[in-house]
Amino acid sequence: MSADLPSRPNLPALGAAAKAASRQLALLTTDQKNALLLALAEAVERHSPEILQANAADLTEARERGTTAALLDRLSLADGRLAAVVGDVRAVATLPDPVGEVFNQKLLPSGLSLYQKRVPLGVLGVIYEARPNVTVDIASLALKTGNAAILRGGSETLRTNTALVVAMAEALPENAVQLIASPDRALVSELLQMHQYVDMIIPRGGASLHDFCRQNSTIPVIIGGIGVCHLFVDESADLEKAIPVIVNAKCRRPSVCNSLDTLLVHEALAETFLPKAKAALAERGVRFVEDEFDTEWMSLTLGIKVVAGLDDAIVHIQAHSSQHTDGILTQSDTNAARFIAEIDSAAVFVNCSTGFNDGGQFGLGAEVAISTQKLHARGPMGLEALTTYKWVGSGDYLVRG
Amino acid sequence: MSADLPSRPNLPALGAAAKAASRQLALLTTDQKNALLLALAEAVERHSPEILQANAADLTEARERGTTAALLDRLSLADGRLAAVVGDVRAVATLPDPVGEVFNQKLLPSGLSLYQKRVPLGVLGVIYEARPNVTVDIASLALKTGNAAILRGGSETLRTNTALVVAMAEALPENAVQLIASPDRALVSELLQMHQYVDMIIPRGGASLHDFCRQNSTIPVIIGGIGVCHLFVDESADLEKAIPVIVNAKCRRPSVCNSLDTLLVHEALAETFLPKAKAALAERGVRFVEDEFDTEWMSLTLGIKVVAGLDDAIVHIQAHSSQHTDGILTQSDTNAARFIAEIDSAAVFVNCSTGFNDGGQFGLGAEVAISTQKLHARGPMGLEALTTYKWVGSGDYLVRG
Repeated sequence: MSADLPSRPNLPALGAAAKAASRQLALLTTDQKNALLLALAEAVERHSPEILQANAADLTEARERGTTAALLDRLSLADGRLAAVVGDVRAVATLPDPVGEVFNQKLLPSGLSLYQKRVPLGVLGVIYEARPNVTVDIASLALKTGNAAILRGGSETLRTNTALVVAMAEALPENAVQLIASPDRALVSELLQMHQYVDMIIPRGGASLHDFCRQNSTIPVIIGGIGVCHLFVDESADLEKAIPVIVNAKCRRPSVCNSLDTLLVHEALAETFLPKAKAALAERGVRFVEDEFDTEWMSLTLGIKVVAGLDDAIVHIQAHSSQHTDGILTQSDTNAARFIAEIDSAAVFVNCSTGFNDGGQFGLGAEVAISTQKLHARGPMGLEALTTYKWVGSGDYLVRG
Repeated sequence: MSADLPSRPNLPALGAAAKAASRQLALLTTDQKNALLLALAEAVERHSPEILQANAADLTEARERGTTAALLDRLSLADGRLAAVVGDVRAVATLPDPVGEVFNQKLLPSGLSLYQKRVPLGVLGVIYEARPNVTVDIASLALKTGNAAILRGGSETLRTNTALVVAMAEALPENAVQLIASPDRALVSELLQMHQYVDMIIPRGGASLHDFCRQNSTIPVIIGGIGVCHLFVDESADLEKAIPVIVNAKCRRPSVCNSLDTLLVHEALAETFLPKAKAALAERGVRFVEDEFDTEWMSLTLGIKVVAGLDDAIVHIQAHSSQHTDGILTQSDTNAARFIAEIDSAAVFVNCSTGFNDGGQFGLGAEVAISTQKLHARGPMGLEALTTYKWVGSGDYLVRG
């Protein structure tokens, strides 16, 4: 299928087409967008055989290249996963549409009548690896918010992504979702410089992809998804209840960004509680390290450190956290308040698992990414994070004094 | 005075000091911050003689270098301007503090109790030219919002800025406001790469400064302040009332970013209304061009174009606007609604002067910049644009299922 596509896409042409499409998408009503989402779901469903065939070819090639089982798993749309992706599109159609919201309406002393109106960002550039479900996820979230999207998936899923985009194109307005269908890595650098066409870059991948985007993009980049996450067990914590929270934070899904990386334990608990906590974790296969605190483990490895108390814990987290998710287990309201105030992370938790830092758990309905930078959106990004606003002013032929 | 300062500042050390200071500033109460603002105003007042002396020395040197009168005017703090700057600081103390606001409080089905809390961004990097009043303005806005600031003013005001920062340091917590006191331009590039310490870059200057920051920064940059602004006079406009609005948009302050650059006139008005409008503008010294529509004039030059109607006007604006301020003069609600929907600018106006796109006119109390990009803040940026939020979650030792 990819043989039909040009091997070197003309990115400026693609950008201009996306910008033009975005102007049309911005004018769609919520009903129109929801109808398109349902049509998109149907189109993907209808083309499932070709999509799964393309996916199988990607998987075969990846297997031949000696790709790890974990990565193969992320590539696969088999075993009902494609149907789940289609279900997610239908779910997006039921979410509230943030676009069009009017807020901060006021009449100024000058006579100026003013309000802010929520509008789409315009064109999203999404750079991702492996998981082909992102292709459909982002397309549906972009469409719901009236944005056009330019997608750059990994070369290892080029056949799958091409089949998905060809299927979706049957339902979508022209150029609403475009795929950079070439494995040429130079195209990523070129995409990152197209600020005249692209309004936001969303990298979905590891730290090196985020660093590359940060270094090379002239377009605002949403940095995120890298979690070096902490729990501090304070002296006053309910020790019996604390262990299941720690085990849940570490073991629920060790490979995701909100899983626990470092456990900090108050020194008063070093001889009593810590051995029990380690035993419960070891039972689940957790390994411990005591000398490395800057790694997002994404596995059953856990850093353990005994600290002198809250001050020491805060200093450690300030030095090592990726500002994603950090929590305290404590019965002290004073210490909880200090932790909330002094830990500068996207999510700061008291007496709960780090696993809760998630768009679904936060009730956002959809999650575009988890931002660890501070501008525009922080933490789980829902649909509203794909919008901006304009100021709309009017008067009776008003002049400024 | 600058002789006391190192000629090659150690930027990483300065960044680390700013980050450390920002953690203390974030914990200050509104009362504490307001007291510091009043102390800052007093410190600048107390040191006015030295500041004005330094400013006079900068002016002398600039004059010797043959600096234009317009630029000399922007450099000067004489003739009561320093007192006005001090007055502005006291006004900032009276503004509401956005930090600490709690919003979107909810209890999730999981039992997670969640809210968002408004917090300072951390460290602001501000790169500006000429106007030394920015030094004090930004210091006071940063302080009010609990942020630390690293300032990089132009070499032409190094003496003035140094005197201002030395004076302010008497009132401010250590390292709250630091000046890069060296004319070395390489330091700007270095500052733009310090994303581990600096959370936001605010350039205050011309297009080339904004472009440089966009190309070289790994820190989010607020692009803005460049206005290629339009008014479209629709066929149905009240022609008598339209002329004063056009004159006001062009002539009130031709050198500022929200002044009118291109007047688009419906072809039905080309023979009747347009000559009258031109006569009124010419009386104020306005010159007309009919072949250049991509320049921010910042002067009494005005582009004039006759268009076939609303569609044509929208196409022209989409092609030439800097997405700062664009307006329509019309009696047609339908055309006004289309203009508002289809023009993708920070401020879209109906029947008022472009001059209203301003933080003060919009009732924001203070203006950090006027953003023409879409992320984080669009249009006039008030104090809230210097903040972000954190998600605060708590539970009774909650685990995620």
